[in-house]
Amino acid sequence: MRNLYLTNLPVEEALERFQTALKPYLTTENEEIDVVQSLDRVTGEAVFARCNSPLYDCAAMDGVAVISDHTRGAGETNLLTLKEGVDFIAVDTGDPIRPPYDAVIMAEEIQETDSKDALIRSAAAAWQHVRPVGEDIVQGEMILPGGHRIRPIDIGVLLSGGITRISARKRPNVAIFPTGTEMLEPGEEMTEGGIIESNSRMFEALVQQGGGSPTRFPSIPDNYEMIKTRLRDAIKDFDMVLVSAGTSAGREDYTVHVLRELGEVVVHGVAMKPGKPVILAVAGGKPVIGIPGYPVSAYLAYENFAAPVLRSLSGYTADNAPVVRASLTRRLVSSLKYREYVRVKTGRVGGRLVASPLSRGAGAAMSLVRADGFCVIEQDSEGAEACSEVNVVLCRGLGDIDRTAVVIGSHDLILDVIADLMPNLFPGTHLSSTHVGSMGGLMALKNGEAHIAPIHLLDEKTGIYNIPIIKKLFGGGRMTLIKGVGRVQGILVKKGNPLGITGIADLNRCRYVNRQRGSGTRLLLDYKLKTIGMDPSGIKGYDREAATHMAVAAAVQGGSADAGMGVLSAAKAMDLDFVPVGEEEYDFAVPVEFLELPHIRSFIETLKNGDFLLKLDALGGYTAERCGEAVFIDR
Amino acid sequence: MRNLYLTNLPVEEALERFQTALKPYLTTENEEIDVVQSLDRVTGEAVFARCNSPLYDCAAMDGVAVISDHTRGAGETNLLTLKEGVDFIAVDTGDPIRPPYDAVIMAEEIQETDSKDALIRSAAAAWQHVRPVGEDIVQGEMILPGGHRIRPIDIGVLLSGGITRISARKRPNVAIFPTGTEMLEPGEEMTEGGIIESNSRMFEALVQQGGGSPTRFPSIPDNYEMIKTRLRDAIKDFDMVLVSAGTSAGREDYTVHVLRELGEVVVHGVAMKPGKPVILAVAGGKPVIGIPGYPVSAYLAYENFAAPVLRSLSGYTADNAPVVRASLTRRLVSSLKYREYVRVKTGRVGGRLVASPLSRGAGAAMSLVRADGFCVIEQDSEGAEACSEVNVVLCRGLGDIDRTAVVIGSHDLILDVIADLMPNLFPGTHLSSTHVGSMGGLMALKNGEAHIAPIHLLDEKTGIYNIPIIKKLFGGGRMTLIKGVGRVQGILVKKGNPLGITGIADLNRCRYVNRQRGSGTRLLLDYKLKTIGMDPSGIKGYDREAATHMAVAAAVQGGSADAGMGVLSAAKAMDLDFVPVGEEEYDFAVPVEFLELPHIRSFIETLKNGDFLLKLDALGGYTAERCGEAVFIDR
Repeated sequence: MRNLYLTNLPVEEALERFQTALKPYLTTENEEIDVVQSLDRVTGEAVFARCNSPLYDCAAMDGVAVISDHTRGAGETNLLTLKEGVDFIAVDTGDPIRPPYDAVIMAEEIQETDSKDALIRSAAAAWQHVRPVGEDIVQGEMILPGGHRIRPIDIGVLLSGGITRISARKRPNVAIFPTGTEMLEPGEEMTEGGIIESNSRMFEALVQQGGGSPTRFPSIPDNYEMIKTRLRDAIKDFDMVLVSAGTSAGREDYTVHVLRELGEVVVHGVAMKPGKPVILAVAGGKPVIGIPGYPVSAYLAYENFAAPVLRSLSGYTADNAPVVRASLTRRLVSSLKYREYVRVKTGRVGGRLVASPLSRGAGAAMSLVRADGFCVIEQDSEGAEACSEVNVVLCRGLGDIDRTAVVIGSHDLILDVIADLMPNLFPGTHLSSTHVGSMGGLMALKNGEAHIAPIHLLDEKTGIYNIPIIKKLFGGGRMTLIKGVGRVQGILVKKGNPLGITGIADLNRCRYVNRQRGSGTRLLLDYKLKTIGMDPSGIKGYDREAATHMAVAAAVQGGSADAGMGVLSAAKAMDLDFVPVGEEEYDFAVPVEFLELPHIRSFIETLKNGDFLLKLDALGGYTAERCGEAVFIDR
Repeated sequence: MRNLYLTNLPVEEALERFQTALKPYLTTENEEIDVVQSLDRVTGEAVFARCNSPLYDCAAMDGVAVISDHTRGAGETNLLTLKEGVDFIAVDTGDPIRPPYDAVIMAEEIQETDSKDALIRSAAAAWQHVRPVGEDIVQGEMILPGGHRIRPIDIGVLLSGGITRISARKRPNVAIFPTGTEMLEPGEEMTEGGIIESNSRMFEALVQQGGGSPTRFPSIPDNYEMIKTRLRDAIKDFDMVLVSAGTSAGREDYTVHVLRELGEVVVHGVAMKPGKPVILAVAGGKPVIGIPGYPVSAYLAYENFAAPVLRSLSGYTADNAPVVRASLTRRLVSSLKYREYVRVKTGRVGGRLVASPLSRGAGAAMSLVRADGFCVIEQDSEGAEACSEVNVVLCRGLGDIDRTAVVIGSHDLILDVIADLMPNLFPGTHLSSTHVGSMGGLMALKNGEAHIAPIHLLDEKTGIYNIPIIKKLFGGGRMTLIKGVGRVQGILVKKGNPLGITGIADLNRCRYVNRQRGSGTRLLLDYKLKTIGMDPSGIKGYDREAATHMAVAAAVQGGSADAGMGVLSAAKAMDLDFVPVGEEEYDFAVPVEFLELPHIRSFIETLKNGDFLLKLDALGGYTAERCGEAVFIDR
């Protein structure tokens, strides 16, 4: 029973159909709550002041309350003496001004002759420095309209207006059901075939942020009757139901069939990527949303469909994320079948905002963690060319982005260490790194897309690292090489080295996993193969590409490959054995004009920092004699 | 014991001195928490993945797992039959791909001949549609850096990376002490001289938003020893202490003296307005901040001094409020002594953003509730001219501002009713109203500062309301009058009318409170006085001005005035007696070019809405036969 026939409705049309179907049912309820507990709640109706603030006419300044008539005639040449208790009384800010007193003279303007007298040098106008009753809040005045989300200042003013309880919208109760027999609870022992159930916990947090009250249930196994029973109960007790996973065309994706039985499936399948297999249903008068299981799909389906429905229940309004124009670093090709949400990293390089696309897979949850924003490619567009200007919906502050060192190039674990350490050493600075290999990094510098390119490129003729290639590509005078680390490259093999690999000559008798074209590690392999006269086409898996040292290590650890090239720290992190191949220099190319940017200076300072060097030691396999040293590359 | 000698340090310098003094003491502590409870917490250190995600090589699609070698040679003209269990097994997305299988063919591309066979029309490349182990998250990879505020997506990825507990910064504990013998708890019976203590509740909410954990204590009376004991205990147990009120030059403002005894007062008095009498102290190694009692001062002192210190403890970063350029509607004069924070309402009128200053008093808490943003006048500036462009730091979304009907003119309670009703009837629209009197409203239209001017201006010659003055000011063809309500104006007097006022002729034997110049109500009084030949200078209080009907009513209710002119609804709201003077027409002038804006159409529709008419009835004193009717004003 596969559901191959999903519709392909545009996002807006799908949402509109859903909202239309829900219209007869969606209602909101109010409840009385304490004002002091009302932060972020939404007013159920307009709130009117119960009392005036100030409650009475009162002194606006520290000083003396006077009878204005008694001060007439006072002037610089005609100092007037007032008697305490007869002409004035001392008052502090906020003290009531009662008849016969009708004005205040500030403390600074009074000469006290003795405690019973005050000398004044100007007359007081009636009601001067008196805050009239109700000046701030007048009894009966509207303090807040209905549907208003309460801020800290609102709490203060409500209390000042004599309000201690208000009618607020009830937080909508949202049931969250993970589904899938293969689901493991976080912390459960991991078994092959098991998947850690995490989306429901993301939904919990999103519902909380959206003003709802989430209840997360344990996973329902892929069992038609069980899903039906649970959902039938939930639509009775909850205002909204989210069903996680099992929404697509799998043999055990029962959700849509259950929902057809319990109510009306308004939409199954929308023209968005990731996120296509969404189910929008109304059952028992309640919105029920089936959300696909891939984490990025889940996030986008939630934001596009669950969030707006929750808002109409909770009364929260959408945060309008800022949209900026940025220059795309890579060509993006997109299908006319979908609107696509491409996660991007952004940075300001040479005055211009650049957007580098991150992994586009629906399963790439880390791309959401790392993203600064989304580049939305509309359904009627086939994509965008490299260097073209695109709209980016930001999910990070522009100020932060402006203080971010944009690093594009070869990957090493020390980039993580710097990204963690630098903002602590130099608050306000950030590091963003994208891993495209050494050559990719130098191209990014050439195109003005990055501040820093980490590289490890051996010149085969001279045996010198990095400097020759920079000279060749950029000429002299434009570039600085910030020295990084020496590191050992080698072959990663399973613990115990079961195939007895002793060097690259043995790679033709194992399943290899390679790095992507343009990476220094792949170039090193090619160079080493050439020196021993070995043909790469004899290596099984030479064409299988992984993007980082850690991805290579994971493939070896997982058993789908027997060997791959990488650094010692990656082998250690994954508990693999390591067959050294050679030491290389991993440095940072930085255009001269960026050296004085505060976040680039912070980067270089971090390389010299004692904490950084300690962490290098802990990772293992690095030398750092010249770390942070600047080498100016001249002609 | 008055503290007349406050310093006048610039805001940045004061903060810097404070932070320098705190530097040796500020530390942060971490604690272990559950990831599922970690929303909005801040990571105490970098978090590294414990496991790969996916946990194993798995199917990226629903379909069949195949041995890629067995599919060689398949093509459109050479369909190949695969045998289940020999050449393929059926898989759903996420199912593990184990050797010998090494590729997936999508369900859509397979012709099943019978359940045991599959016909394919193209060969599968090794590893196609297989998500390699660790594709998303690699064991040992950094998921989040230290100092990162956790978002919903982070929770999902942490769990997927095998993390169930993390080290998070402890929420800083903040003690909040209201002070002042005159303080009343909200809900306590109100007594003259009492002030409802509300600032501490605002601080509670602000601390919560800033990532701290607030503890609010009951008010401390103005007693030196008591304040000292409480603060001495608090600096032992809390990470930060806020003392509300009692920070200035009053006779009973003991806070600064106590803090000099308990520690070091780093700053007392900053060059900002409102908010000057701030105390920044370090006692027992803890930051102690004395915050002035006026609500606007309190808010600004908190935001400028308490918030940054709390952030350095909690690890939250500042929200960078967007700054826009807007045209000022009124001249702002400001002293060279202070940086001034002027609350403004903003709106987009005729394509241009305008900023109307709100009440500038330190006690005007409602101005904070109503504000769309702040216009910050730097200390070295004497202010800004009307129509000049100023920076406005927004505290409301620009999208909302763009959909706001800007109403400037005469005040009536029905504006509150519309502001409440309109966003409910027409979601996404808003109404912002500023009360400057009828003539002020027409001037605002002339200057392109408002969409709508509510007016009630009688032409003395013709006895016709509103239309003649519009013709005179704007000529014909440019303006529409949207009919509003008929309303009764009269004299508001204390319940029981103790002075036996029967009409305006009696105003010379009482204390009067007038409305501001340019208000229709004041013009009506002047007209009526002229008709009976009475001299305004004989009326005591003719020069005393209040800005709204409700402010007049409050002065009469409070007893500082015996009589004032206003509408019946204001008298009813304040339980006053009412001596009718005449009926008038309260209408809305709207430039023709704004009539088709969605938020202006919503305004007009609201005037015709049944709910609105019901609420008018409840207020009392209104007639509404032509409400919402458009009268085009021709030559």
